[in-house]
Amino acid sequence: MEKVYLDRFAKIKAEMTLRGIDALLVTDFYSIWYLSGIWNEPYERMYVLYVPVEGSVKLFANRLFNIPANNFETIWYSDSDDCVGILSSHIAEKGKVGVDKTWSARFLIPLMQKNQNVSFVLGSDCVDNVRARKDLKEIELMKEASRINDVVIEKAMAYVHKGVTELEVAEFVAEQFKKEGAEGPSFETIVSFGANAADPHHEPDGTVVQEGDCVLIDMGCRKDHYVSDMTRTAFFKSAPEEYTKIHDIVREANEKAEAFVRPGVPLCEIDAVARSYISDAGYGEYFTHRLGHFCGQTEHEQGDVSAANKDVAKEGMIFSIEPGIYLPGKFGVRIEDLVLVTKDGCEPLNHVDKHWKIIG
Amino acid sequence: MEKVYLDRFAKIKAEMTLRGIDALLVTDFYSIWYLSGIWNEPYERMYVLYVPVEGSVKLFANRLFNIPANNFETIWYSDSDDCVGILSSHIAEKGKVGVDKTWSARFLIPLMQKNQNVSFVLGSDCVDNVRARKDLKEIELMKEASRINDVVIEKAMAYVHKGVTELEVAEFVAEQFKKEGAEGPSFETIVSFGANAADPHHEPDGTVVQEGDCVLIDMGCRKDHYVSDMTRTAFFKSAPEEYTKIHDIVREANEKAEAFVRPGVPLCEIDAVARSYISDAGYGEYFTHRLGHFCGQTEHEQGDVSAANKDVAKEGMIFSIEPGIYLPGKFGVRIEDLVLVTKDGCEPLNHVDKHWKIIG
Repeated sequence: MEKVYLDRFAKIKAEMTLRGIDALLVTDFYSIWYLSGIWNEPYERMYVLYVPVEGSVKLFANRLFNIPANNFETIWYSDSDDCVGILSSHIAEKGKVGVDKTWSARFLIPLMQKNQNVSFVLGSDCVDNVRARKDLKEIELMKEASRINDVVIEKAMAYVHKGVTELEVAEFVAEQFKKEGAEGPSFETIVSFGANAADPHHEPDGTVVQEGDCVLIDMGCRKDHYVSDMTRTAFFKSAPEEYTKIHDIVREANEKAEAFVRPGVPLCEIDAVARSYISDAGYGEYFTHRLGHFCGQTEHEQGDVSAANKDVAKEGMIFSIEPGIYLPGKFGVRIEDLVLVTKDGCEPLNHVDKHWKIIG
Repeated sequence: MEKVYLDRFAKIKAEMTLRGIDALLVTDFYSIWYLSGIWNEPYERMYVLYVPVEGSVKLFANRLFNIPANNFETIWYSDSDDCVGILSSHIAEKGKVGVDKTWSARFLIPLMQKNQNVSFVLGSDCVDNVRARKDLKEIELMKEASRINDVVIEKAMAYVHKGVTELEVAEFVAEQFKKEGAEGPSFETIVSFGANAADPHHEPDGTVVQEGDCVLIDMGCRKDHYVSDMTRTAFFKSAPEEYTKIHDIVREANEKAEAFVRPGVPLCEIDAVARSYISDAGYGEYFTHRLGHFCGQTEHEQGDVSAANKDVAKEGMIFSIEPGIYLPGKFGVRIEDLVLVTKDGCEPLNHVDKHWKIIG
């Protein structure tokens, strides 16, 4: 096995031992790729990497999957087999077995019925805590995906012109990602004009930009298995003063939070820095979501920067810092970077200016 | 509540009663749309429609979701709340609670720990069995999505020309879907030239078509919440005789299976009709997957046409009939229609000729 995988397994087994978990059912296909280099999207079919603390790793795969020769004993099943029954007979009969958080009830409930002496617990933290701290190769790939994101968001803002719709801007972003060497967007690009920006999850539609509108673009691309994610908010042709002041508040909240990031700081305190700044400015009730989320192979990995998360920042973590203020029916602004936790602070992966500006 | 939803709830409660299920946690967002008209993709956040046999339906939603005014008591939570704790306190304390097959362990395992007197079972059949039989409105939408698919596959086959790559054909298909009024592909279009077709799940890449290659296109589009799915296999410039004979076998297997479909026939027997025909022709080991799958809001809904499925066909069901033969490293052919089970047989939703032909 290559050293990179040996290192990852060793770290995961240390997490398992810490939690008294005897074996893991790793089912997240990103995690399986992370541990093996095997890329397979199983859709609704069962796909499991069984990782006991002692003993050998086994891979359970449908014959239809395109699984290359690999380092593990591979146990194949067909569509007509009872796949949970096969899994049940190969795993521990008792002890504590950790299950991935995304594993679905269709497999978990019948497996629990078959292996009644096993204590099933959530086990994906064992993998996710390791995945949360990117190694050097991963950091290089994340920086490249964010470099492309920086280039394309500037092109997208420059592309916004009289008569353009949100959907057209989103399609422009998708084309530019490919031109710059990414595989495409890693999530549906959010383009929100004016009052649409008051919904943080607005989907781009046929709305045409109007003078004085805010233009919020939240976008990310995927390249070589890793993604980027950033948001900038500008104004089209002119900027109402009330809204530029709010934009300044959000940018300052973003900057203060980023300045506060360093190893050892609880993630909830990073959230609190931005949140209390926005609250003190009188807009607390309009900042309706957590400050950030972890990012890596997907734009939402395990872990977030929220009031509920008491975990501390550690070197190698990459997460978003994205405060926002949303005035229902009127206006919204969000400013988001990805940041990498370094030895003594953090390094933003995005370098596009964050001040409000007028475009168009 | 509109009659369409009242009817659907009544059918689902009948299924629950039949199984002794006291309440359902409906979490599949397609099912929630089906029961409410509320379209919301919750990503990793908790989203539950609680449906007791007796008592009122409740909707559990994150404040971030864009949920319109609706017919249900809506219980909101925020990212900083213990959402499973909130759910736990609002649902039955005992009895049998059915869980959707796709609900993830991240919610199910902690809910099981909190509500230890509840017996959690797989419950989504109660909804899926109703969703499997399309009502008139759904049939109309499915026919429209398949009509577009018919138009676009003929254009795509006509587009295949010297020098073209699989990816270019897939992109052409995506463009044509939009031109014809669909929202886009409902899954990643499969375009496989020559030996690539031997992998039923091949992803289109930079492979350039060569004279004598088979050209397999498996595609579907989405329009107004419903999808289509079909496959045709042609030959570029010339057709090796060995492969045209195999194509004939697959087409005949498809036709025999479709002719066999009618209410009351076990789905496994439909699979057997195609499979035994291919086996008798000497290619049984090269038909490596089930004959078909159900289709509706997504291209893979609950239910399949496989050796393992003893359920019988019922009027209103829509599923695929897609036999294939795959010769590793050499060649592959698959021919797929969607069919609607009618009172006394079935109606294919696809009308494109299935015989092999030479294109380019």
